[in-house]
Amino acid sequence: MINKLVSKIKKLNAPIVVGLDPMLNYVPEYIKKKAFDGYGETLEGAAEAIWQFNKGIIDATYDLIPAVKPQIAMYEQFGIEGLKAFKKTVDYAKSKDLVVIGDIKRGDIGSTSAAYAVGHVGTVKVGNQVLTPFDEDFVTVNPYLGSDGVTPFIDVCKESKKGIFVLVKTSNPSSGEFQDRLVDERPLYELVGEQVAKWGELHMGEDYSYVGAVVGATYPKMGEILRKIMPKTYILVPGYGAQGGKAKDLAPYFNEDGLGAIVNSSRGIIAAYKQEQYAQYGEQNYADASRAAVEFMIKDITENI
Amino acid sequence: MINKLVSKIKKLNAPIVVGLDPMLNYVPEYIKKKAFDGYGETLEGAAEAIWQFNKGIIDATYDLIPAVKPQIAMYEQFGIEGLKAFKKTVDYAKSKDLVVIGDIKRGDIGSTSAAYAVGHVGTVKVGNQVLTPFDEDFVTVNPYLGSDGVTPFIDVCKESKKGIFVLVKTSNPSSGEFQDRLVDERPLYELVGEQVAKWGELHMGEDYSYVGAVVGATYPKMGEILRKIMPKTYILVPGYGAQGGKAKDLAPYFNEDGLGAIVNSSRGIIAAYKQEQYAQYGEQNYADASRAAVEFMIKDITENI
Repeated sequence: MINKLVSKIKKLNAPIVVGLDPMLNYVPEYIKKKAFDGYGETLEGAAEAIWQFNKGIIDATYDLIPAVKPQIAMYEQFGIEGLKAFKKTVDYAKSKDLVVIGDIKRGDIGSTSAAYAVGHVGTVKVGNQVLTPFDEDFVTVNPYLGSDGVTPFIDVCKESKKGIFVLVKTSNPSSGEFQDRLVDERPLYELVGEQVAKWGELHMGEDYSYVGAVVGATYPKMGEILRKIMPKTYILVPGYGAQGGKAKDLAPYFNEDGLGAIVNSSRGIIAAYKQEQYAQYGEQNYADASRAAVEFMIKDITENI
Repeated sequence: MINKLVSKIKKLNAPIVVGLDPMLNYVPEYIKKKAFDGYGETLEGAAEAIWQFNKGIIDATYDLIPAVKPQIAMYEQFGIEGLKAFKKTVDYAKSKDLVVIGDIKRGDIGSTSAAYAVGHVGTVKVGNQVLTPFDEDFVTVNPYLGSDGVTPFIDVCKESKKGIFVLVKTSNPSSGEFQDRLVDERPLYELVGEQVAKWGELHMGEDYSYVGAVVGATYPKMGEILRKIMPKTYILVPGYGAQGGKAKDLAPYFNEDGLGAIVNSSRGIIAAYKQEQYAQYGEQNYADASRAAVEFMIKDITENI
């Protein structure tokens, strides 16, 4: 799956991923009205609204982008019904040949991490049947519990030829509280990065590993160091756009082959129609605004790296 | 909800929680057969089997215990159907007046952490309706992303009078890989513990905070230090029993008032009938074996702390 991701990025010349993180207040009124008319102001109604919203964006952008990254929290907030919309979104994106990165930030130990792994990027055995629950291509994983938490994901991914992105340095302002603390005069995120490179050797693709890393666009100097520590690691870069990361800061996340990083934008794409720059599209054409924002983002990034 | 938890622990003299982490191979054959006969060897069949298994254990133990801790990964591995069984388990345990700790180990940033929080321990607004998706009383939270990841949970919990347990020092063998690394000559978990104590001040109950901590039973010396760093923090202690933690090692996790810690056992209780000690109950009476294991655990812990 890492080979497919790399090949799609090359073919489209688009090292980007669209974050499908639908807040209900991003969803145009006409979509909400229709969903609430059909299902009421219920969890089911909310789930229908975000699913229809996502579908519009996927339809308007799938030919330009290699991947989408649905953030499961935005679905889980609506309970079971929300998670059904997550599953529908994953399946629909895959039907459009998009690579799906489930932003689930799970992490536990041993058989518990394995349970998350089979649920999201593997198969589960029930009696004599082998079943596929959520079926993303990649998921994000939290490393705080150490190798016991991460290697069960890798074991499952080796079977399924899928992959993970491990949180190394996150894009948020307080990420330094623990991640930047100095251990033997080096920040913790560097040690995590080294461990990611080691984990990566357990499951290599052609040029890059199936074990990627998350490094926020908001910390480009750290990105430069982590790029060197993890040469074979694909870096998923959140924080571009709405969170303040600029295209000119993204060069250090890429290798000399022009590969090695995939930049995420969520709000900047999916709620583009709310920005002044794309206001002319109007609510009805929110998905066209998203397409225009994708085109701008691809240009912005490929011209600057 | 922390006050309710403390008062139930006192009343029952039982500082324990039963981990509802149902692996399909813990479930007696007759329950699986009935579930698969009704729903096939499907995700729905698996979900039905673990739900019926849980219900039996809750019915057999609810009068002895203050709380249960369903581990969501064990449900999520069966996709949407599994998560429905999680929700049924939460609701059923609450109908028996048990405090429910959702072991979800979530953690993200800002509005994303808030989305997890409203989904699990808060309410979500859809149009003019205020809805309650999963409705646990407490959830576990991963601190790797810093305050941006944790305080949104606290904000939601202040509204709902619910709480969280933050991972500080986990029970697994490799937990030291990052958690034990020395920062200014002190292990990282101590810094996380100090931060938990600070976060705890944001949402205090009568004697203890709504912000608890997870500290594994397998590291009693670290437990002793963390107890002192976080005097008002309830400590959720996994790792007793099957993972190797002994009752005699648990005293340091408690305060002098005999409170301040709640010890979890999962496999040791729910799969008790598979142990030699309880084999006489047989598969049919697995829930009675769980009750006997709960009685033993309560005695073992209260005599040793």
